[in-house]
Amino acid sequence: MSYFNTVSKIQYEGKDSKNPLAFKHYNQSEIVLGKTQEEHLRFAVAYWHTLTGGGSDPFGADTAIRPWTNYTGLDLAKVRVEAAFEFFEKIGAPYFCFHDRDIAPEGDSLKETNHNLDVIVASIQEHMKASGVKLLWNTANMFTSPRFVHGAATTSNADVYAYAAAQVKKGLETAVELGAENYVFWGGREGYESLLNTDMELELDNLARFYHMAVAYAKEIGFTGQFLIEPKPKEPTKHQYDFDAATTIAFLQKYGLQDHFKLNLEANHATLAGHTFEHELRVARLHGMLGSIDANQGDLLVGWDTDEFPTDLYAVTLAMYEILSNGGLGSGGVNFDAKVRRSSFEPEDLFHAHIAGMDAFAKGLKVAAKLMEDRFFEKITDERYSSFKSGIGLDIVSGKTDFRQLEQYALGNQTIGSKSGRLERIKAELNEYIFSV
Amino acid sequence: MSYFNTVSKIQYEGKDSKNPLAFKHYNQSEIVLGKTQEEHLRFAVAYWHTLTGGGSDPFGADTAIRPWTNYTGLDLAKVRVEAAFEFFEKIGAPYFCFHDRDIAPEGDSLKETNHNLDVIVASIQEHMKASGVKLLWNTANMFTSPRFVHGAATTSNADVYAYAAAQVKKGLETAVELGAENYVFWGGREGYESLLNTDMELELDNLARFYHMAVAYAKEIGFTGQFLIEPKPKEPTKHQYDFDAATTIAFLQKYGLQDHFKLNLEANHATLAGHTFEHELRVARLHGMLGSIDANQGDLLVGWDTDEFPTDLYAVTLAMYEILSNGGLGSGGVNFDAKVRRSSFEPEDLFHAHIAGMDAFAKGLKVAAKLMEDRFFEKITDERYSSFKSGIGLDIVSGKTDFRQLEQYALGNQTIGSKSGRLERIKAELNEYIFSV
Amino acid sequence: MSYFNTVSKIQYEGKDSKNPLAFKHYNQSEIVLGKTQEEHLRFAVAYWHTLTGGGSDPFGADTAIRPWTNYTGLDLAKVRVEAAFEFFEKIGAPYFCFHDRDIAPEGDSLKETNHNLDVIVASIQEHMKASGVKLLWNTANMFTSPRFVHGAATTSNADVYAYAAAQVKKGLETAVELGAENYVFWGGREGYESLLNTDMELELDNLARFYHMAVAYAKEIGFTGQFLIEPKPKEPTKHQYDFDAATTIAFLQKYGLQDHFKLNLEANHATLAGHTFEHELRVARLHGMLGSIDANQGDLLVGWDTDEFPTDLYAVTLAMYEILSNGGLGSGGVNFDAKVRRSSFEPEDLFHAHIAGMDAFAKGLKVAAKLMEDRFFEKITDERYSSFKSGIGLDIVSGKTDFRQLEQYALGNQTIGSKSGRLERIKAELNEYIFSV
Amino acid sequence: MSYFNTVSKIQYEGKDSKNPLAFKHYNQSEIVLGKTQEEHLRFAVAYWHTLTGGGSDPFGADTAIRPWTNYTGLDLAKVRVEAAFEFFEKIGAPYFCFHDRDIAPEGDSLKETNHNLDVIVASIQEHMKASGVKLLWNTANMFTSPRFVHGAATTSNADVYAYAAAQVKKGLETAVELGAENYVFWGGREGYESLLNTDMELELDNLARFYHMAVAYAKEIGFTGQFLIEPKPKEPTKHQYDFDAATTIAFLQKYGLQDHFKLNLEANHATLAGHTFEHELRVARLHGMLGSIDANQGDLLVGWDTDEFPTDLYAVTLAMYEILSNGGLGSGGVNFDAKVRRSSFEPEDLFHAHIAGMDAFAKGLKVAAKLMEDRFFEKITDERYSSFKSGIGLDIVSGKTDFRQLEQYALGNQTIGSKSGRLERIKAELNEYIFSV
Repeated sequence: MSYFNTVSKIQYEGKDSKNPLAFKHYNQSEIVLGKTQEEHLRFAVAYWHTLTGGGSDPFGADTAIRPWTNYTGLDLAKVRVEAAFEFFEKIGAPYFCFHDRDIAPEGDSLKETNHNLDVIVASIQEHMKASGVKLLWNTANMFTSPRFVHGAATTSNADVYAYAAAQVKKGLETAVELGAENYVFWGGREGYESLLNTDMELELDNLARFYHMAVAYAKEIGFTGQFLIEPKPKEPTKHQYDFDAATTIAFLQKYGLQDHFKLNLEANHATLAGHTFEHELRVARLHGMLGSIDANQGDLLVGWDTDEFPTDLYAVTLAMYEILSNGGLGSGGVNFDAKVRRSSFEPEDLFHAHIAGMDAFAKGLKVAAKLMEDRFFEKITDERYSSFKSGIGLDIVSGKTDFRQLEQYALGNQTIGSKSGRLERIKAELNEYIFSV
Repeated sequence: MSYFNTVSKIQYEGKDSKNPLAFKHYNQSEIVLGKTQEEHLRFAVAYWHTLTGGGSDPFGADTAIRPWTNYTGLDLAKVRVEAAFEFFEKIGAPYFCFHDRDIAPEGDSLKETNHNLDVIVASIQEHMKASGVKLLWNTANMFTSPRFVHGAATTSNADVYAYAAAQVKKGLETAVELGAENYVFWGGREGYESLLNTDMELELDNLARFYHMAVAYAKEIGFTGQFLIEPKPKEPTKHQYDFDAATTIAFLQKYGLQDHFKLNLEANHATLAGHTFEHELRVARLHGMLGSIDANQGDLLVGWDTDEFPTDLYAVTLAMYEILSNGGLGSGGVNFDAKVRRSSFEPEDLFHAHIAGMDAFAKGLKVAAKLMEDRFFEKITDERYSSFKSGIGLDIVSGKTDFRQLEQYALGNQTIGSKSGRLERIKAELNEYIFSV
Repeated sequence: MSYFNTVSKIQYEGKDSKNPLAFKHYNQSEIVLGKTQEEHLRFAVAYWHTLTGGGSDPFGADTAIRPWTNYTGLDLAKVRVEAAFEFFEKIGAPYFCFHDRDIAPEGDSLKETNHNLDVIVASIQEHMKASGVKLLWNTANMFTSPRFVHGAATTSNADVYAYAAAQVKKGLETAVELGAENYVFWGGREGYESLLNTDMELELDNLARFYHMAVAYAKEIGFTGQFLIEPKPKEPTKHQYDFDAATTIAFLQKYGLQDHFKLNLEANHATLAGHTFEHELRVARLHGMLGSIDANQGDLLVGWDTDEFPTDLYAVTLAMYEILSNGGLGSGGVNFDAKVRRSSFEPEDLFHAHIAGMDAFAKGLKVAAKLMEDRFFEKITDERYSSFKSGIGLDIVSGKTDFRQLEQYALGNQTIGSKSGRLERIKAELNEYIFSV
Repeated sequence: MSYFNTVSKIQYEGKDSKNPLAFKHYNQSEIVLGKTQEEHLRFAVAYWHTLTGGGSDPFGADTAIRPWTNYTGLDLAKVRVEAAFEFFEKIGAPYFCFHDRDIAPEGDSLKETNHNLDVIVASIQEHMKASGVKLLWNTANMFTSPRFVHGAATTSNADVYAYAAAQVKKGLETAVELGAENYVFWGGREGYESLLNTDMELELDNLARFYHMAVAYAKEIGFTGQFLIEPKPKEPTKHQYDFDAATTIAFLQKYGLQDHFKLNLEANHATLAGHTFEHELRVARLHGMLGSIDANQGDLLVGWDTDEFPTDLYAVTLAMYEILSNGGLGSGGVNFDAKVRRSSFEPEDLFHAHIAGMDAFAKGLKVAAKLMEDRFFEKITDERYSSFKSGIGLDIVSGKTDFRQLEQYALGNQTIGSKSGRLERIKAELNEYIFSV
């Protein structure tokens, strides 16, 4: 049976194609810097937005027209798996990602919930084998249920903490079972609504204990994937504890967890925190913690997480440049944590949206590769920081100076010459790269 | 000679006073929680805003009418010192703070600049002795001069780095000479305008080297005050490296500097970073790094640093609560890094503004003390987190559980009961504290 | 039957009361400036937040524990009416407000939907008669249903436009039936997600046509209440057409509708638009269009509509000052368009929240009245603008000058003296008013 | 004498040119939609940023290295004129714009100030004649001098109001003398710092009186250019009266000024107000008030006016589309109200920056022209709103229906079908236009 019978497998047709249901830039087998585009990009479909989500927002009900509208409960979950793999294969994404509750419904007890999960995981396993589509990462939904109203690993209620532990334990087992290449912790409701009733110290200590237990259990059961934490500054809580890359790194360092975790960075979360996406990627990269990305884009004129499909070539190019500079994402990938607009409610829109995002990333990859081959940015910084390559500058970066020597140097150095940073020229040249590749 | 001859020493007259040039809440000798208000608050006047600043903004020239208008150069600097100490004494502030270039002008060479500084420092020293007013902290202005266009300790130009080192070396010597209780590093231009031409890794490594040299030199010359770093997210650069408390802590941890520095936190910088002031204070407190505060307030509807005098009782009360919870600020204090509005250009406004701020903090102190005496917040959190004091909760915080045990517990725990967080009631009760104290 | 049996009617007990379920400032019969507090404030309960809402947010399901959990459909709607009036009477609110779909569920057809509405409106009418509680305003929910995905009066689909017209027609009939003192248009989905697929001119023309038809139909059926438009800048759409007071006024002026509408202004919408609440009230007041208010407050550090109960005395005092300056709100009132936090899910929280808001407004009213009696702001502006009361200034405001005369005056006017705006002193004095009343 | 002797006249060399000092897209004589690029774009250089500005910001002194560093007073002003026209000619801009105080310094009296202006205007007139470069618009700087601390036409001081009138009178005379095609009013300090001491009604009434006097005087002296108002939401004041296009239109309508003014819209002001640039252009266009643009771009992650040179092709393309839809800008043009970064302090950067902006607009023009030729957006909206072209939809837009008829229609219309808005597909297609033109 086909759930998307109006759409065939999406093919690469090149940039002159007028077919809206074809790739214009993403050519999976094309070699870029010695690897195929597919190997570079490791695209993943987000189960929650594309299969489970329905277009609701705080002011409105679901709008999405889906072929499985009449199913409910486990039946609905089963049909979704079939539709999911049809979608993965047609769009040509080698990976997918999910939260536990995206794929299977809660039951009346944790036991029943776990049973539901087992049923669907078994079905997914079969589909993975048949299709070759792999699991980039899974995670636990610890935010939708009212039990998590005060948080999960940072809850004020010990019973909820235990429940969350049980849920992540099951999640790690699922990860092993399905061969997930990573396991993600996203903040969910780990944060606070107000400091007025919050014991922030206890909550953060408990969060660290939770992560240590997760690391121990993963080792115990032989999960060898990468642990990832996904920063976000706000929403649903007023303040999410994993505010941004730097905050998350401070936390991991304080609690001795830095060797066990990398970051899963999202473009829209970066901008909500007041940063560009490339900034967050750079920060993580310099700490050796750039693990994976959630590919989307936000609207900087609104203050909430819009999770749009990424089409801005400026942002995507600079993101891909950071990723190439990192030597790629290792076990990570490019997960479309993006949803079609509430007004794009037809099944075909799911294809248009993924094509838009995949083409943008393919083009961004090619532009970034060209910038790298030309050593575009390296030439700029090589020249700009050249004073640190000899003389007093070399002494500084070699750690051979102190304040006395530097003062002596400064006192004898009558005029200091500076050079323009040339940002306007650099931006114009970057435009030419983007248009011409 | 008097520079503020229309104003007498400001006295405490109590809340029913109609005299606008009197304190209505700040009564320096009144005992609160076992210490005088003066000991709790350790107010400092910011030399730059109150003595040196003139009301200019990006669209307009100075407006301030000051009694020293006709002086220039070192003469102006000398007159300012006299006016400064008259102001400190009349307003009744026990401390002041300055950047090197606030107090003395640059000369034609570093040598001459240092000489200018020496002249004024000597004058200040005499005034300190005569008046009993002390130096809370000093710092280096490494942002006004064009030489710092690309940063100081994070510059792309090694000559500038050396100059900055010489300037901080001199600053530490000044600190020793004047008995400063702290030495502050404020970001200034340590950040970037664009990642496109920035070697962030080199810049941050150089910044860490700079701090290590400062620590070594302070030890060498016997400076025993506290080193402080002042976070700010943006302005003047697009991205300041010391974005907020957590980011600064991550940096200090990464480079092994965390035992040598505490934080000087500013209200307006907190809100520019997307945080409440109390959030930043809490984060620093939990890391043992709450050192001092820059007391002011921002306008959350505009996007730049307005440095208004603090009058919002909500913010001040919660700030003082964090400070009391920290056991005070140690060698730190409450520095009014605040400027009169450009339209408040008369000398008298400087008094009105400091009275407004000092009264707000005095009242905030008293409200916070009452909240603490009544264990208002502790009662809320004691009850809210009570499940972590026995049973499975106690096992969790004691580190005695693992995911297997927690799952067993969760599977056997059929219904989880949650309690309301009661935020609306808490806010109403907090209002009563503010009105009634 | 009682739905809130743990709570008795809320009484005024004065500011020293320790009873959290008592008013500390709101004393309905107390006279302020010649009218009772009740007459000044005309409080209304918002049916949607307090009776119908359940605490869901974009990341989570309902949390609210309500006594009517097990009912569904029309039965649920009936029980809600009973609970609503019990709540109105216990909290002591003289008014309530609703959207059509808050009170009664949609049926399978518009006819059935209207029938459901008739059933509940009849029940409400009886309860109104029995209790004396009145309807401040009603409105139409034209945003929840998927049919409004592209807007209602600004939809791209003529069938939806017709449906919206039918819904507002019914709403006006309901208004007449229940004696509503106003009818409100809130933007809902009247706006755009993106200009890329939007014919803004057609949409705005259609919106104006819709309003003209509403005015005509109201006249036809004898609805004599006030029409109100409620501005909001964004959410749910990226750009809402009624962005703020000024934008809405421009629209009404362009289409000749300004005599038929006033504005219903909301605090949180004001801040989302980048304005203070008092700014929006002032703008409306100067145009003679201040009609009613939606009382709540937002969190300026997050970018979405949080609809918190108002407790910030600064904002409430300045809002009440504008309202008093307007000679009151006429047929309008103070509607608590505010919801308890998702974590305040117990029925008792609904009382705590309304007490918090009503006490804040009662205190704000008293402070504003004192400011007015003392002519606090008038004295400031009288002095500040005194130069416009005689000489050249009087000529200017009398329209007796032109550029030639003004130039002559300016050429002969050697030095211009300015006076300080004294904002710091004014803020300190305002603090004393708030604490002392 | 040459002030920019390292740079020759900038030529069009096409997109494959590697010469950074050549145009890659701007080819002034190339025909697009029947007009030359030069006729479409009417580029203007902003005197203040490019000739007068020096790179200072709130935290730092000027950085710019300019060939006229050693001149002062009128001599400096004269040298600047020479340098200005060398720059205009080398960059190939047909227009320039200025504030009165950009071109000539204030004297000790208004009379002397006007004399200074006369001297420089005479010099400019000669250069204009010799070069053929024209004046797009001039305006009055009524914000830098301390006299305007409380505003100009909205000041609290009648003497300042008279001074402002004299200044604009002179400005209009200058406009006539130099054949300016427009005269601009930019808010400057027309707004408020706080409502607490502001009589908003008097200030707005006075502003309207000022505009009426300007209109009268322009008529009297035969100035036939277009009057323009430039909206901006904040900075330097907390609230600028001309917040955005809609607010300005409301003001003009209220005071009967709408036939005498159009809008000069700036990209960075749009985003500070929470709008896209294309939104502001659309709003003005629908009111017949799109007059001219200030071409720049802001940084949406910072909260102040950065006035960067425009390089974002998305924004520029959509702006040019609105301009083409408006039938061009009439007497208006594309003024680069943009400044080189403080770190781009070399004279050459001025060329790089203008090349970047002019090339971006030339490419944006070509993409927009292609979109228009293909009827790209029209096809989308034609289909999307097709239901308004017949049947009930046509009745609606023809004004032939009322609520009764629409209700009858809705009651009989069982199911409403909606179509996807297809935003993801549209964005992907727009990307292809931008890359391929």
